[in-house]
Amino acid sequence: MALRAKLIERIDELAADAQPHVVAWRRDLHRHAESAWTEFRTASLVARQLADLGYAVRVGQEVISAAERMGLPTSDKLESCWQRALLEGGDPEFLEPMRDGYTGVVGMLSHEPGPVIGLRFDMDALDTQESMDQGHLPADEGFASIHENVMHACGHDAHTAVGLAVAGLLVELGDSWQGAVKLIFQPAEEGVRGAKSMVAAGVVDDVGYLLGHHFYSNWETGEIAPGMGGYLATTKFDATFTGRAAHAGSSPQEGRNALLAAATAVLNLYAIPRHRQGVTRINVGQLSAGTARNVICPSAHLAMETRGSTTELNDYMYWSAVRILEAAGAMHDCKLEIALQGSAQSARSSPELASRVARMAAQLGLAIRPPEDSSGSEDVTYMMQRVQERGGEAVSIGFGAGRPGLGHHTPTFDIDESALQGAIRLLVAVTLDLFQPA
Amino acid sequence: MALRAKLIERIDELAADAQPHVVAWRRDLHRHAESAWTEFRTASLVARQLADLGYAVRVGQEVISAAERMGLPTSDKLESCWQRALLEGGDPEFLEPMRDGYTGVVGMLSHEPGPVIGLRFDMDALDTQESMDQGHLPADEGFASIHENVMHACGHDAHTAVGLAVAGLLVELGDSWQGAVKLIFQPAEEGVRGAKSMVAAGVVDDVGYLLGHHFYSNWETGEIAPGMGGYLATTKFDATFTGRAAHAGSSPQEGRNALLAAATAVLNLYAIPRHRQGVTRINVGQLSAGTARNVICPSAHLAMETRGSTTELNDYMYWSAVRILEAAGAMHDCKLEIALQGSAQSARSSPELASRVARMAAQLGLAIRPPEDSSGSEDVTYMMQRVQERGGEAVSIGFGAGRPGLGHHTPTFDIDESALQGAIRLLVAVTLDLFQPA
Amino acid sequence: MALRAKLIERIDELAADAQPHVVAWRRDLHRHAESAWTEFRTASLVARQLADLGYAVRVGQEVISAAERMGLPTSDKLESCWQRALLEGGDPEFLEPMRDGYTGVVGMLSHEPGPVIGLRFDMDALDTQESMDQGHLPADEGFASIHENVMHACGHDAHTAVGLAVAGLLVELGDSWQGAVKLIFQPAEEGVRGAKSMVAAGVVDDVGYLLGHHFYSNWETGEIAPGMGGYLATTKFDATFTGRAAHAGSSPQEGRNALLAAATAVLNLYAIPRHRQGVTRINVGQLSAGTARNVICPSAHLAMETRGSTTELNDYMYWSAVRILEAAGAMHDCKLEIALQGSAQSARSSPELASRVARMAAQLGLAIRPPEDSSGSEDVTYMMQRVQERGGEAVSIGFGAGRPGLGHHTPTFDIDESALQGAIRLLVAVTLDLFQPA
Amino acid sequence: MALRAKLIERIDELAADAQPHVVAWRRDLHRHAESAWTEFRTASLVARQLADLGYAVRVGQEVISAAERMGLPTSDKLESCWQRALLEGGDPEFLEPMRDGYTGVVGMLSHEPGPVIGLRFDMDALDTQESMDQGHLPADEGFASIHENVMHACGHDAHTAVGLAVAGLLVELGDSWQGAVKLIFQPAEEGVRGAKSMVAAGVVDDVGYLLGHHFYSNWETGEIAPGMGGYLATTKFDATFTGRAAHAGSSPQEGRNALLAAATAVLNLYAIPRHRQGVTRINVGQLSAGTARNVICPSAHLAMETRGSTTELNDYMYWSAVRILEAAGAMHDCKLEIALQGSAQSARSSPELASRVARMAAQLGLAIRPPEDSSGSEDVTYMMQRVQERGGEAVSIGFGAGRPGLGHHTPTFDIDESALQGAIRLLVAVTLDLFQPA
Repeated sequence: MALRAKLIERIDELAADAQPHVVAWRRDLHRHAESAWTEFRTASLVARQLADLGYAVRVGQEVISAAERMGLPTSDKLESCWQRALLEGGDPEFLEPMRDGYTGVVGMLSHEPGPVIGLRFDMDALDTQESMDQGHLPADEGFASIHENVMHACGHDAHTAVGLAVAGLLVELGDSWQGAVKLIFQPAEEGVRGAKSMVAAGVVDDVGYLLGHHFYSNWETGEIAPGMGGYLATTKFDATFTGRAAHAGSSPQEGRNALLAAATAVLNLYAIPRHRQGVTRINVGQLSAGTARNVICPSAHLAMETRGSTTELNDYMYWSAVRILEAAGAMHDCKLEIALQGSAQSARSSPELASRVARMAAQLGLAIRPPEDSSGSEDVTYMMQRVQERGGEAVSIGFGAGRPGLGHHTPTFDIDESALQGAIRLLVAVTLDLFQPA
Repeated sequence: MALRAKLIERIDELAADAQPHVVAWRRDLHRHAESAWTEFRTASLVARQLADLGYAVRVGQEVISAAERMGLPTSDKLESCWQRALLEGGDPEFLEPMRDGYTGVVGMLSHEPGPVIGLRFDMDALDTQESMDQGHLPADEGFASIHENVMHACGHDAHTAVGLAVAGLLVELGDSWQGAVKLIFQPAEEGVRGAKSMVAAGVVDDVGYLLGHHFYSNWETGEIAPGMGGYLATTKFDATFTGRAAHAGSSPQEGRNALLAAATAVLNLYAIPRHRQGVTRINVGQLSAGTARNVICPSAHLAMETRGSTTELNDYMYWSAVRILEAAGAMHDCKLEIALQGSAQSARSSPELASRVARMAAQLGLAIRPPEDSSGSEDVTYMMQRVQERGGEAVSIGFGAGRPGLGHHTPTFDIDESALQGAIRLLVAVTLDLFQPA
Repeated sequence: MALRAKLIERIDELAADAQPHVVAWRRDLHRHAESAWTEFRTASLVARQLADLGYAVRVGQEVISAAERMGLPTSDKLESCWQRALLEGGDPEFLEPMRDGYTGVVGMLSHEPGPVIGLRFDMDALDTQESMDQGHLPADEGFASIHENVMHACGHDAHTAVGLAVAGLLVELGDSWQGAVKLIFQPAEEGVRGAKSMVAAGVVDDVGYLLGHHFYSNWETGEIAPGMGGYLATTKFDATFTGRAAHAGSSPQEGRNALLAAATAVLNLYAIPRHRQGVTRINVGQLSAGTARNVICPSAHLAMETRGSTTELNDYMYWSAVRILEAAGAMHDCKLEIALQGSAQSARSSPELASRVARMAAQLGLAIRPPEDSSGSEDVTYMMQRVQERGGEAVSIGFGAGRPGLGHHTPTFDIDESALQGAIRLLVAVTLDLFQPA
Repeated sequence: MALRAKLIERIDELAADAQPHVVAWRRDLHRHAESAWTEFRTASLVARQLADLGYAVRVGQEVISAAERMGLPTSDKLESCWQRALLEGGDPEFLEPMRDGYTGVVGMLSHEPGPVIGLRFDMDALDTQESMDQGHLPADEGFASIHENVMHACGHDAHTAVGLAVAGLLVELGDSWQGAVKLIFQPAEEGVRGAKSMVAAGVVDDVGYLLGHHFYSNWETGEIAPGMGGYLATTKFDATFTGRAAHAGSSPQEGRNALLAAATAVLNLYAIPRHRQGVTRINVGQLSAGTARNVICPSAHLAMETRGSTTELNDYMYWSAVRILEAAGAMHDCKLEIALQGSAQSARSSPELASRVARMAAQLGLAIRPPEDSSGSEDVTYMMQRVQERGGEAVSIGFGAGRPGLGHHTPTFDIDESALQGAIRLLVAVTLDLFQPA
């Protein structure tokens, strides 16, 4: 079941050769960081590269279901980012179908017959202002983000660069495998907003094995978690109460106080009963309400999330929250609007596939970390669950990125670029291994 | 317009003659205190006395509308009090139609043609345990209440005794007036539960002038307020949330927490916006919820009231409260039941009738108090409003009862029995005066 | 006690002559609207004009107590507005001592001996974006505010222009009076932030009669309320809860949730018991809390106000609010900071002075409105109360400004400039009248 | 390490002989059910029997630390139950030192040298009215509780009877063991109120091995769980807010509203943040507040509990609750009193001792249940933790009692008396086994 040593040697050579390109890609993407649903330049360049390599490329609404996108920016922002991508060297051919926020890319390469192996790479940056302090490598080396308040602070630039390298290696190793590879470049993982729309477009419906991955800056370079699990299912949503303003001194009784509705909701949301079956969470992270000190508050906006150790537990939290919000609005005669902003499911890596990844990692000399549950949420879970439901196997692999102390989602986040090698080698090796007759 | 001096002299003599009887009646009623809707003995003896004097007497459902009674005791309590009344000398003939809580009495005496003048007397005691301490006159003189936890702590025993004396004097003075007198003995003023049902039965529909009165122990004997006003409209009601019990340790998520509904309601009830147009009040006086420490609370009971300086303001408070209660139930998936327990309206004495009372009081040598708004609620307001709506005039008269320091509704409440004279004299004199051609 | 007809004729002539200048001043001030504590250009030009007329002028910290200023803008804003005033023609000599927000002016003119009569004019604009729609006179005539988001939407430009005209007339009529006039130009009436600091600087300590005034656009031109009262005492204040952020998914227990503190405070603030003695109000007009959806909220900012029909009732509300806020912070282990932003007292015009104003208004042919309580708050009350406490008399006069339908504090607020005549005439006439031997 | 077959045979014979006595004891105790801290008759008879068997017996304050008792009944109730025990045949000698609620018994039997083995039996009943319905065995057979509203609805009567049988067998088998047995009969396990006070009195300080046990009616007779764990640590406590009454209509501002304090506390208690490290629970099971509808609520009483999957997590919940309660009191100017009513710790059976129990159970032919965590709380955990801290081993053993469907703490709870055999046999066999040289 293991790969022949010679093939591994070949993978290692190709990966080493690719390294300068991978670093260049990563730095270019880092410098032109684009946040969720605005990855126009990134996605169009990925599509161009895949096409040039010979992949059958699909983009835009073919791979993104319009109705299932969550947490979209305003049309104005989408348009200005699209224009920016055009100016900054995005590929015009692929930019066109991506306009209005359809920034997914799928590249397919088939040597039929054989299984379909999917690899998923996310591409989006965060709304964070990158540090320009000395000692922050991207600043020192001149590839810090040139976009104000947008930064690759979670390593998706590296994920994308790894994806492009994998694409190349699989072409070069084309005589070593039989089947199909499907490279899925996903927008809007931050806020868990994008995966659902690709799943809804049917992107993983034909996938037999799905490989997801993520870099973790706190782990040593060379460390690997072969099968992540314990992701909390989550729903991100906003609620807006609309009441009626009134002068607080002269006619308080004419107001409909949206702040009272919101305050009542907040207290009761946190008081949703704990659940016997596992972990539940709720948080109201932001509340913004009111106009002037002497005016009964006419509107209140809340940004919230629920989580659960299973999708069912998260549903329990979410629907309890909806009930509470609706009643809080009714209590103070305010209108309520709820807007979904993102969601992810709980998921576990398929045990057999995870074991297979672990064996391959060992063969490649990577260090296996002890199993540990994630405490966060990831929307690759939508893809994992779909593949598993349809009888396939799915795995999420964690890679160390050797920058302990520089937390994710901070202005000084960074990764050790040498860590990309291990990811490229393992993803290619596992893919080839999966094509082997069992 | 004033009465002839000779007639006043005659009234004074008759009132003086009646005094020993009035005191005896008052003490007998005090000793056999009966609380709201259980005034069986009291009402049946009043009816007997009126009938013996020659009044046309109506009792029971003829003068009490079943559907409009509020805050009834349990059937068991009604029945046991009724049996007690039978044992303690209530009049069997009149007791029969009063069974099940129809304890109103109306006596009519007509010398047609002429106006109809109504006088209203309330009869009920309070759920209070009377003091047996030395110095408390009823205890010292042996007429303290023999009924456990029932006491005439608001002087309605005196009101009733005054009513019987007035009934007698009007018979004796029969040749001095032309028209009809209607004596209305009302149950259940405490908790403002009874007047509405008598009004609904049409009891004051033919009344042209209505005289209500009340003793105030804090005022000096001989003082009088000729036209009370400023009563707060009020609604008394209970709410019960019914949820679902669950073990708080092992399956909290299965509960529907009635206590959370109640706590949310309480906070929001007190937060109902103040109103530009006047005084508003709300109070949740009692909350009783839950079964055991380790069980999610399955039910919660709240006893509440709203008030307003006008009936509209009270309605604003009440309906706001209902909306909040309903939403609090919905928020925690609990069923809500609201039960009306009492209500009164705002009202003001008719200014002309009040002036007439004041002039007569002056003629009788009573001391007029400066005008002052009541800060409480009284359900004679239902009768006043009905009479005024139909074009009549109504007044509520306050009489001093000379026991400053002994508050109403306390175990040591008492009144100066000599104060009854002034009330009898004034009520009879004003009645006769109203029969005079203007 | 009335003025000789001839003197009134002279006042009328002088006022008519002044009208073009008044309109020009008003429009210049309107065009260069300056909001609270940044009235640098306005105040320096007022000071210059008073000085040129021969008044003894005091400005800056001589008339503004630094410690008692409330609701100051940031130093940055103060400085940039000061620079702007310099560029836009403010008077450099007087600008200097006003730097850092000391924008009060007092002009004194004495013909001793005799009483000191104070007249108060407020100068500040609002943080409102003025309408540029056709039909809005300032837009049509080219004197709409050139300062973004600052607008004279409450008529203080007219108050100031009236003040300058009054200053001139009193000089011209100098031979008709004996005593001293003290013209007080106050900053920061909006948000009731400025008067207290002028009172604390002793500005009204020598004033025997104080005249305040205000235009009301909803009343007809020529209407006047000779003695306003019923101002609600008020306190404007902000509260900030500071807790601790934590990841809501992975370590909620490490957070200190400032939003829970704020929500608890809000509900309980509105639930402060109503008060027997009069009108009370509370409002939390703004709440802004939190950073990100998935972070336990580390801070929350609330903008609030309390009111009461007396200063004592407002104090009751304010100190109850402070107690609740402190406890809400303690409940969720959050730090609390409270910052006072403004305050005014309750006050009533002195009845004798108001009658005197009414008589003079009648003599001038102005229409007296029926008495009506204000439902708002005004910080001239600080000055009124100080004068009254020291044995003087104070009055607040309302003038109609003939633009019904264009509400105060709206982008299309306007006043009928012909209404300024009546104000000038009455203020001068009353002043002269007060100098007459009684 | 196993016992010789012959010895087991002897245990089986003795247990079979004891069965009629065990059933008689159990039924006598069931009939005279005594609830927490009033087990006077039960405990005095236990003490008498142990003394008669030759055990060194200690009772009263020697084995119960007065200061650590929790959730005591009133003195009146203690005294009347004590008198009742005297009348119903309690042992006068032992009753004396138990007066005032010192109802623990410890019997010691030593054949030194050797280890000390402790066995713990709880004795208290519940405040439940026993069913008298046909089909309920105690009713049918005439041993239903004769004490109103007290019932052995959790099987502690059986625990005590088993304890007496074990005491007898260990005497009869005295030549088969070397060391000391310590039989601990504990009061007030219900509400987890008693164990802490026995631990504080040092009762388990010399114990090397501790055996606790409990019957579970839902399991089949003959089933056994050799080492229970997963008990939730818990604290049971009451809070009382004391404010000040005031008339809600006329002077609401004079009240200090204890109900507002309580409602605020309730909402915030349920909102205590979930904890990363495990299971947390909180419940306010009862709230009782107020006097009359029209009176600002002067006091509120809450009955609560917290739980946690570790003692630390429970402490986190408890101290968060205390902070919230204190702040809620401060918020409404109410005094707060907190009264501890019970507590238990989290604990796990020592794995080696549990294995030893399992092996012995297998030898005796009992059926081992798969491991399962308890979802409740038990105060034997105090004893287990103390023994484990001092280097000993402790185990809690579950025995099936063959009455599925008849839930614990219900009026029809019952146990299969034949199940007592297995418990007696296993407890004696394990004890003898522990005395064997390892």
